[in-house]
Formats: sequence, structure tokens, C-alpha cells
Amino acid sequence: MKHQGILIIISGFAGVGKGTLVKRLVQKYDRYALSVSMTTRAPRPGEEDGREYFFVTKENFEQKITENGLIEYASYCGNYYGTPRAYVEEQMAQGRDIILEIEIQGAMKVKERFPEAVLIYVLPPSASELEMRLRGRATETEEKIKERLSRAAAESEGLEQYDYVIVNDDLDVCEQELHGILCAAHFTPKQNVSFINELRSELKKFGKGEKRI
Amino acid sequence: MKHQGILIIISGFAGVGKGTLVKRLVQKYDRYALSVSMTTRAPRPGEEDGREYFFVTKENFEQKITENGLIEYASYCGNYYGTPRAYVEEQMAQGRDIILEIEIQGAMKVKERFPEAVLIYVLPPSASELEMRLRGRATETEEKIKERLSRAAAESEGLEQYDYVIVNDDLDVCEQELHGILCAAHFTPKQNVSFINELRSELKKFGKGEKRI
Repeated sequence: MKHQGILIIISGFAGVGKGTLVKRLVQKYDRYALSVSMTTRAPRPGEEDGREYFFVTKENFEQKITENGLIEYASYCGNYYGTPRAYVEEQMAQGRDIILEIEIQGAMKVKERFPEAVLIYVLPPSASELEMRLRGRATETEEKIKERLSRAAAESEGLEQYDYVIVNDDLDVCEQELHGILCAAHFTPKQNVSFINELRSELKKFGKGEKRI
Repeated sequence: MKHQGILIIISGFAGVGKGTLVKRLVQKYDRYALSVSMTTRAPRPGEEDGREYFFVTKENFEQKITENGLIEYASYCGNYYGTPRAYVEEQMAQGRDIILEIEIQGAMKVKERFPEAVLIYVLPPSASELEMRLRGRATETEEKIKERLSRAAAESEGLEQYDYVIVNDDLDVCEQELHGILCAAHFTPKQNVSFINELRSELKKFGKGEKRI
């Protein structure tokens, strides 16, 4: 059974720590590649263009949409976020697992186009813990924090659309669990269509008692 | 996120080595319990009543059916096979993962009654390798071998009904993969309904700006 690269979508409420989690995973294992999203939102302190995001203007983003250069895009809290197509396709062709860290709207669009994508949602241990983490960030206004919590409540309605949910309580544990899930995700029938079809046709020949080489 | 015991179904073509695989898993990890099936087929050399199967007469089996003492049962190559209800329910209540080694007909019946069950199919590396293993067993007549290969061809049509497929090429590798899959299987939304609902209702309160304790 040949293990091809799979398309992985990681989502999670703002503040849940999914960015840190994904970064650690990519640093630790060579088998994962991280897709860098494009956004029109302003960089946060310490963020670098091309690392956390490609930071572009609204005009540039809309140009990219017109060129069909994005796998998906969505608007979230007044800003555009999208996934540039080229890098994702390149990594998949090379057989590496490509991770897209995108929110639920985008995830659903990718799932439509790539039904074999594996969707994982990172959850906080509790709502109060999520609020604490958002406050701890110290880069968000009170208004933004409330907006994000409201948004989390709405997003939580879509959790059943995901293949897996994990809780980010202890970062080390969560990273291990996520890696374990991603390994297991290679073993679904939809990731092994060609192996199954080959075995099936070989078995059919045997069943009919045909001559074999 | 509390990890409750899950109901695991392992199926595979006759001769693929799923029995050995499951036995090793249960011996190695305390978290798994193995459901012992009931059958009307004759014991093979070395098989023990209550270990590989509960070996019963056709009359006894049909009595069990009448009493609703089986989660599922099916007839396969002229014999009855079924899963006694009591032990499965007891293990699940204790929070252990319970493994049912059953064939595809039974698996589909269990899935209907327990939609949260996790279904895994063990495959041979190839059809010719499967044939070799059946011959290597030396307990089967030529007619039986052909019957089993025919049956495998038919069963292979149902593979997409399973959540995962694994190839038993190297037993150690396959055992590790299976354990990894079973760990990951705890992280689906359907296994975490109560945690998700609790988080969701807590987030809704936050979103509405209600008073919190």
C-alpha cells in the first residue's frame, strides 16, 4: 500500500494555539509541508511576510482571485484569507502531506473540491480557557476578543463536518495526538483507491478461476 | 476530552492473519478487550472452546438467537457465527475498547445498531499472497481454498463501507499501524459528542454575553 501525500486541513477557534501546533509539527517531521496563506489583515508584532502569511493589499488579493490562483478564499472579521494554489499542488505531487491552516468556511470549500482531504479541528479544553488565552495574547482589543468568542460559538456548529477533533490542553500531548491522527488518516479507503482497485481486480480473476501468470 | 471505550470491528479475508493480529494487540495493551464469537463450525486443531470461539451446536445457536443474546449473527460457508451481547456491553460500560473480529455481513449489522463503531479491514499485500497463506495453513481442502478466494473477491466489493484498511505484510508493522489507527479513532466527533455539546453550550453563553460564574 503506497502512502501518498494527503491534504490536511487544520482549523480551530482563534486563540486555541493551532498555529503553534502546526509549526511544531512541520519543524519536527519532514513528511509535512505547511501551506502559507495569503491575507489582507495587518501583521501582528513578530509576524513575517511569507512565514505566517503572505500579507497583501485588498487589490492584490482580488487580482489573485481573478487569476484563479487560490484554492479557496474567504472573508473573516473584515479581512480576506486564501490558499495559494501553486505550492499545495506542488507538494501533493511530490507525495508530501500538505497542511492548510484555514477556518471553517475555507475548509468546507476545500472539502468540496478535494473530498479526500482530512479535516481536523483543534479545540480548547473549555470556553473559559479559550477566553483566557485570547486575553493572554495582549494583541487584541476587548472588542476583538468578544467578536472572536462570538465567532467561536457560531463556528462550533460546524464541528461535525470535521473528521477529527483534538483538544489543545498540553501542547506536547496535542502534537503527538495530531501526528498520530495524521498517520492513521493515510489508512482510509479513500486514500487507497488504486491499491484497493488493483487487489479487487486480481481477486476477481482468482474467483473466476482464470489462468494466472 | 474523556476517552470512552469504543466498539471496534476488525474484518478481513480468511487467511489474512487478522486473528493473530488481534490476539497480539490484546495481549500487549490492557486497553483492548476481545469479544469471543460463537460459532457452529468445527474447531480447528489447537483451537479451544471459549478462547478462539465458543463452539456450540446449531440448536444451541438458534436458542441464543431466540433469546436476543447476540448483537449480530450471520451464516458463512454453511456455519453460524455470532457475537454474544453480554460481554461486549460489559466492557464498553467499563470504558475499554472492545474488539469484534467479524466478517462483513456481521460488521454491517453492528454498524447499523452502533453507528459510532469503528470498522477496520485487514488486507493481504496481494491476492497471490493470500492464496499462498491459505495453502500454508494446511487445514483447508483445495475446494475450501477456492471457496474462500471466491468469497474474498465478493467481499472486496464492500471495502468502502469500512473506516480504515490496513495491509498485513509485516506483522509487527501492521500491529503498530492498527494500534495507531485505534488511538486516532477516539478523536472523531462521533466519539466525543458530550464534550462537543458541553463546549458548544458554554461558548453560546459567552457569545451572548451572559453572566458567567
